[in-house]
Amino acid sequence: MRQAVENSNLISLAAGFVDSESLPSGEVSAALDELLATPQSAQAALQYGTTQGYAPLREKLLARVTALDGLSSRDMAVSPDDVVVTTGSQQLLYLVSELLLDPGDYVLTEAPSYFVYQAALASLGVRTLSVPIDRDGMNTDALEERLGQLERAGELDRLRLIYVCDYFQNPSGLSLSLGRRHRLLELVKRFSRERRIFILEDAAYRELCYDGPDLPSIKSLDRENAYVILGLSFSKSFAPGLKTGYGLLPRELVAPFLRLKGNDDFGSNNLTQHLLDRVLASGAYDRQVAALRQVYAAKRDLLLGALAREFSDWPDVRWTRPTGGLYVWVTFSSDFDTGPQGPMMPAAVKEGVLYVPGQFCYVGDPNSPVPTNEARLSFGIVKPDQIEEAVRRLARAARAHDHEADSAAAKSQPILM
Amino acid sequence: MRQAVENSNLISLAAGFVDSESLPSGEVSAALDELLATPQSAQAALQYGTTQGYAPLREKLLARVTALDGLSSRDMAVSPDDVVVTTGSQQLLYLVSELLLDPGDYVLTEAPSYFVYQAALASLGVRTLSVPIDRDGMNTDALEERLGQLERAGELDRLRLIYVCDYFQNPSGLSLSLGRRHRLLELVKRFSRERRIFILEDAAYRELCYDGPDLPSIKSLDRENAYVILGLSFSKSFAPGLKTGYGLLPRELVAPFLRLKGNDDFGSNNLTQHLLDRVLASGAYDRQVAALRQVYAAKRDLLLGALAREFSDWPDVRWTRPTGGLYVWVTFSSDFDTGPQGPMMPAAVKEGVLYVPGQFCYVGDPNSPVPTNEARLSFGIVKPDQIEEAVRRLARAARAHDHEADSAAAKSQPILM
Repeated sequence: MRQAVENSNLISLAAGFVDSESLPSGEVSAALDELLATPQSAQAALQYGTTQGYAPLREKLLARVTALDGLSSRDMAVSPDDVVVTTGSQQLLYLVSELLLDPGDYVLTEAPSYFVYQAALASLGVRTLSVPIDRDGMNTDALEERLGQLERAGELDRLRLIYVCDYFQNPSGLSLSLGRRHRLLELVKRFSRERRIFILEDAAYRELCYDGPDLPSIKSLDRENAYVILGLSFSKSFAPGLKTGYGLLPRELVAPFLRLKGNDDFGSNNLTQHLLDRVLASGAYDRQVAALRQVYAAKRDLLLGALAREFSDWPDVRWTRPTGGLYVWVTFSSDFDTGPQGPMMPAAVKEGVLYVPGQFCYVGDPNSPVPTNEARLSFGIVKPDQIEEAVRRLARAARAHDHEADSAAAKSQPILM
Repeated sequence: MRQAVENSNLISLAAGFVDSESLPSGEVSAALDELLATPQSAQAALQYGTTQGYAPLREKLLARVTALDGLSSRDMAVSPDDVVVTTGSQQLLYLVSELLLDPGDYVLTEAPSYFVYQAALASLGVRTLSVPIDRDGMNTDALEERLGQLERAGELDRLRLIYVCDYFQNPSGLSLSLGRRHRLLELVKRFSRERRIFILEDAAYRELCYDGPDLPSIKSLDRENAYVILGLSFSKSFAPGLKTGYGLLPRELVAPFLRLKGNDDFGSNNLTQHLLDRVLASGAYDRQVAALRQVYAAKRDLLLGALAREFSDWPDVRWTRPTGGLYVWVTFSSDFDTGPQGPMMPAAVKEGVLYVPGQFCYVGDPNSPVPTNEARLSFGIVKPDQIEEAVRRLARAARAHDHEADSAAAKSQPILM
């Protein structure tokens, strides 16, 4: 296995990395040259910054977030004081969780969900419950039922947070529909009895939208800025190496969040914040996002086309057709095993292709089944000219699975009888 | 007060910032140009990095740390696998503390000590005990007594960490002597009975040494790499805006530390790590450190000279004469009050100079007295041509204190009688 992974011929549809060739080295270089050429701006960027983040950048981030929703900051009852800059959106997710959750508290997430955040929650001793998704995102009827169960069990006050990745979700590529956005917020308001339940809206992929309708953020529906923590990131839409994310927080959370961040690092990388302030001001960021949309839409189309061709004789295999983001979610027939113990994964490694077994994206909610017949495919870092070959290898591995499963069934028959 | 603070004429000897004019904008710009000019290196720097940090950088950091002590990595039983890159040394201090300490555990620190870390410890629910310093740094006889007290009270197993800023300490400017370095390590080994006690050696100021003897790190005396967590930073010796620190950890702590950092941010800013790798390789870092030594030594001399002149008729006022770092510690007569409730602080603000009241640098150890007659002066960000004026203002504020204290005593006499 290790030997195969080190094989340089291996194509990864597993890695959550972004496209390397479209990384904005020219834009970053130009902005840094400008920034460092003038003593005053160079000194400001190389000196200590603040825990909350560079104020002109926070103003631009707020303007951008509200513009995406076609609203003013007044409409959304927010100001730059409600914006915090973080070391990637991971730090936002982690510190918000550390702030709101005590060991034993509940978080509700989608099933499947973003696995890196699940690991962080587990480390905090938090219990994670999950609600299934369908093509419209988190099933809000199931959510309502779950909230009702918690209430009847007298445990509603242990639920502090509902986490949703609501734009082109990692891992499924699906988005939360408009109706369900309203419904989710309504449910949170209704069930916030003794303590407020917050929605942690992870919109990391929002700007990577290729086609399909635009959706307002849940944050934009929360006109009192009371229930929704909105998280965004430059990692997907610009460059992950800059490790810069940001959050728009309900006013009451800002001060305690900053105390926590003050202890953690008293401020993220300052040079990068000054750099991002420039690329936002100059329009370089917008140009990069527009370019990335072309790049990823083309790669998505290549991936979807290859899946249609290579799995044309597999009527039971289905996959999502995302209108943004970096992921396609594949569902095999119910008895198919994509997991690390099944026959497909080693066959895929042998063929020279990697994917993420779907089961890794499910939390350990004892009330929710964990399907073992799914896979996450990413068209992030894979080169366009390797996509077809990757999917051919995947199909060969899937056939090897079926072959092995058949012969295993044949072998085991005497024992079963 | 607020009005005075916003006074642009105010000179700050309080801020822990670094000298602005010597920030390495040319070196940073040149290294970034080089880095971003080649697609391969640009892509590597703008893509995701790893949680532990860029491997070539970790190799160089290790080589640098061991060279400072005139040893090889084999002598110190360390490898690049024991190096972690962090978002400033603050993140190292915080994550190490989060890793090792449960609420109610003890940390032993110097009195006075670095106040930002004290705030982080308080947020973790940790109890902090302190040991006084003298001109040789932490008093190890007092430390031994304290350890003995904990042992007799059956609480030794709640002590996990001893924190020392052992080079040109923030706030005192004093260093831990060689004899006491050996003694501290010996005490930690001796008192590590059921659980290991770790030394957190904060060497953030080590490379800012101007004159006086060099001292080996405590880490270099711990030849089994078992007891000492060594923390360093580029913030003081290069540029705080890059927000990059690093640690050299005992082997057994590396994996749990990385799990924690993985949850927190799964890696610090990657572009900056690639940048620092270049400035270390090119010699630009060494040149910058050499230049900073000149800059700060000159500013220190201006500050010490001004103190000698302005306080020449104050026989009771004493101050440290640091051979490195950014701080001078001033001790007034025992009845003098430098604190926020005393008469000197508002007088200083009115005169247009800021300092850090010494009492802010003491932890809330109920067994240790908190002197109120001390002050931290920093020669970090103050411009050379403002140092004399700052000290003149400070002396005027001190005279105002004495005047007001006298008249308060006069006024209060009838009540006292």
